[in-house]
Amino acid sequence: MNFGFLRFLLGRLIMVTGALLLLPVVVAAIYRERFGLVFLLLAMGCMAVGAVFSAKKPKTVEFYAREGFVATSLSWILLSLIGSLPFVLSGTIPSFMDALFETVSGLTTTGGSILSSVEGMLYCVEFWRCFTHWIGGMGVLVFILAILPMADGYGMHLMRAESPGPTASKLVPKLGSTAKILYMIYIVFTVSEALLLKITGLPLFDSITITFSTVGTGGFAVRDAGMGAYPIQAQMVITVFMILCSINFNAFYLIVIGQAGKLWKIEEIRVYLCMVFGAAILVAIDLLASGHMASPPMAFHHALFNVASITSTTGFASADFDLWPQFSRMLLSILTLIGACAGSTGGGFKVSRILILLKSAMNELVFVTHRKSVRRVHMDGKSVDEQTVKSVAAYATLYVGIFAFSAALISLNGFDFTTNITSVAATLNNVGPGLNMVGPMGNYADFSVLSKMVFVFDMLAGRLEILPLLILFKPATWRRNA
Amino acid sequence: MNFGFLRFLLGRLIMVTGALLLLPVVVAAIYRERFGLVFLLLAMGCMAVGAVFSAKKPKTVEFYAREGFVATSLSWILLSLIGSLPFVLSGTIPSFMDALFETVSGLTTTGGSILSSVEGMLYCVEFWRCFTHWIGGMGVLVFILAILPMADGYGMHLMRAESPGPTASKLVPKLGSTAKILYMIYIVFTVSEALLLKITGLPLFDSITITFSTVGTGGFAVRDAGMGAYPIQAQMVITVFMILCSINFNAFYLIVIGQAGKLWKIEEIRVYLCMVFGAAILVAIDLLASGHMASPPMAFHHALFNVASITSTTGFASADFDLWPQFSRMLLSILTLIGACAGSTGGGFKVSRILILLKSAMNELVFVTHRKSVRRVHMDGKSVDEQTVKSVAAYATLYVGIFAFSAALISLNGFDFTTNITSVAATLNNVGPGLNMVGPMGNYADFSVLSKMVFVFDMLAGRLEILPLLILFKPATWRRNA
Repeated sequence: MNFGFLRFLLGRLIMVTGALLLLPVVVAAIYRERFGLVFLLLAMGCMAVGAVFSAKKPKTVEFYAREGFVATSLSWILLSLIGSLPFVLSGTIPSFMDALFETVSGLTTTGGSILSSVEGMLYCVEFWRCFTHWIGGMGVLVFILAILPMADGYGMHLMRAESPGPTASKLVPKLGSTAKILYMIYIVFTVSEALLLKITGLPLFDSITITFSTVGTGGFAVRDAGMGAYPIQAQMVITVFMILCSINFNAFYLIVIGQAGKLWKIEEIRVYLCMVFGAAILVAIDLLASGHMASPPMAFHHALFNVASITSTTGFASADFDLWPQFSRMLLSILTLIGACAGSTGGGFKVSRILILLKSAMNELVFVTHRKSVRRVHMDGKSVDEQTVKSVAAYATLYVGIFAFSAALISLNGFDFTTNITSVAATLNNVGPGLNMVGPMGNYADFSVLSKMVFVFDMLAGRLEILPLLILFKPATWRRNA
Repeated sequence: MNFGFLRFLLGRLIMVTGALLLLPVVVAAIYRERFGLVFLLLAMGCMAVGAVFSAKKPKTVEFYAREGFVATSLSWILLSLIGSLPFVLSGTIPSFMDALFETVSGLTTTGGSILSSVEGMLYCVEFWRCFTHWIGGMGVLVFILAILPMADGYGMHLMRAESPGPTASKLVPKLGSTAKILYMIYIVFTVSEALLLKITGLPLFDSITITFSTVGTGGFAVRDAGMGAYPIQAQMVITVFMILCSINFNAFYLIVIGQAGKLWKIEEIRVYLCMVFGAAILVAIDLLASGHMASPPMAFHHALFNVASITSTTGFASADFDLWPQFSRMLLSILTLIGACAGSTGGGFKVSRILILLKSAMNELVFVTHRKSVRRVHMDGKSVDEQTVKSVAAYATLYVGIFAFSAALISLNGFDFTTNITSVAATLNNVGPGLNMVGPMGNYADFSVLSKMVFVFDMLAGRLEILPLLILFKPATWRRNA
């Protein structure tokens, strides 16, 4: 492990965190909240500490995949710890474990909360809570890559560790430019949605915070009624942006450079959109057939909103889908496990991984009957290399293992089976709500401290896609480089 | 497809089925039940039809993996259809769909029932019901291989398709001898358990039928109280045989040829036994800590019985574990998905598959950090070939896909989430009982016809390990050979 470089990078991260903490200070100034001072002190403290840590340049820049994974994991853990402080210091969430849960849920864009009511807290704290979604959505290290000059070589290891999906690719040859383009698209989405929400009649504060929660595919709300508090036009705007932000951002780059025609050729996006609209139609039919809703347009609206909310792993709810008929509940639970597209701000197992696994399985089906025909897995017309297929299979195995282990630990609370299963699914896939106790109108408050630790691990494992986190537990990782 | 050979083989199968139907005739004679005549007529009819079909030898013996898969699937479907007739004709199960469910549940050694009471039916029908477990446990085609002379070449394809596990191996160079040895071990277990159960005080009829259910790892009971109806000594005998029959039968061959020392070197068996006893200890602690049971020896007895019942995929219950604390329920649900050892009569995903997937994932974890070290997966000191690893991954993918698809269809009944999830898990893994409606004291009667069709598919898919069944749906399978 290159400890010098790790120190330098984490120092930079703390500095950036300090800068990000300045935004709530502005909010506090607007709403004349004295707690803004605490944010200011925290920000200045972070910048000072970060500056000290990153003052000395590292001796060597030896930086490999292992270093990239460790740096990414530690960055997220550090950011989560610092991010919890405003909740504890303001008294909004007195327990540190709860505050950590809430912050990790924010940064990993899970959106599950331990709060039974989100109304009445300080504006600056509420703002910070939703802003963590925005920070975590595109990734804080990608942000650092976008704003700080760094060599492509080791930057790529960070990018690979933080970006969701089986492979990470650069849009343009230079990594820094790729990161800049990604953040530009992200900012365009943010500004557009906030404006549109304002136009539909939402207060400015709600427009901005809900936008953070949408584009980061997070799911924190600022009203106790969730998205049910807003007019249907606003819900439609949110639906559109949830879907947009759960699509591989490469797609938008293609549009920017005028190659929108290539869009439909990206298999993952095609399958994802078919899945979202197909599932929405099935749920709408279920809602109508069961007599749960009477108007077909309304049924489709709510079906699409909540399906998009789950597949994008946002976790908003326009209605309490925990009360919906069983088929819809099961479908939403299955969609929870699938998740969004790779390279988006959405979480979950990722559609591309499922495609690779399914195609690989189909090849086996052919192979077993026609011993000779060994075919490669193809995506978007290109052959997927064997190593990627293997690592996707490994990912699936670790994913299922963590799922089972977590479910066993969570069941120690003595809550019902459905709560246990869906709470693990909702945190590991960064969705937020599950069924029963953790349904859209429920929360994570009543779980034990052990359970919350498990959830924190699962949320981070889901967001960082397991490997970077597991590597921390390997003794060899911590050996000094020869 | 070599249709001539398929006709010949299925003809043989029908003949053998006829022979098997003679056993209930003997039972009917003993208990002076006139329905024995129906069994006799069925038996004679099968033998006649089978003789006609297999009279003409096939022109060619071209017989590949594809033919092996198709022949196996069709054999099982045919056997299920014929096996359902006694239930319908005797009026025990008037609905054909229900009778088919019961027979498939029997043959696949699932043990889930649509009957709310199993007491009071004809002895010969009750015997047939449990005997299907015995037939399905070791496999009917392996039986045919054992009794009929067949060339090793194509016999191996049948053996591979019917034997559970990622790979099939011959104990001795000749396949027919391998099949004979397997059945000899199976018969020794059968006779030993029946004798031991008789000694513990069970009636002879119960001793024999419960033995069929145990050694086939099936789970049908002949008392409404399940295994709770028998003394604790009998439950202990059953525990031992459930564990024995869920271990790779290669182990017993090693003992027979005096190489028992090699036993502990078989990794799958080692891991499996650790899993069974480890889980039993955890469940026992949970039962004691929750105040559900007071006596440690009794807690361990019931924990071991029910854990062994689930891991061996038998599905007996010595107590209603659906009422146990949540941690135990969750643990049993997770064990349901794992299942027994390959090459045993037990079902489920199989411990060896999980080991291969986990080892492969661990290799990836090493690979991703030390780009150069590509290691092979090793089992029992030997390297597992890449193709096996790939086909295990493919199996896992198809397994999860079928699980999700089935769960969605089952949820259309409108039953609760836990029932939906655990009923699919219990049928796909040939366990039998799940939780809530399908708990040890529940049954599958109230599901819709569509659901029962899904369960029948899942049970067959679980027993035949998916591929042989899927291949039936591929149009290319039905093309005549050039």
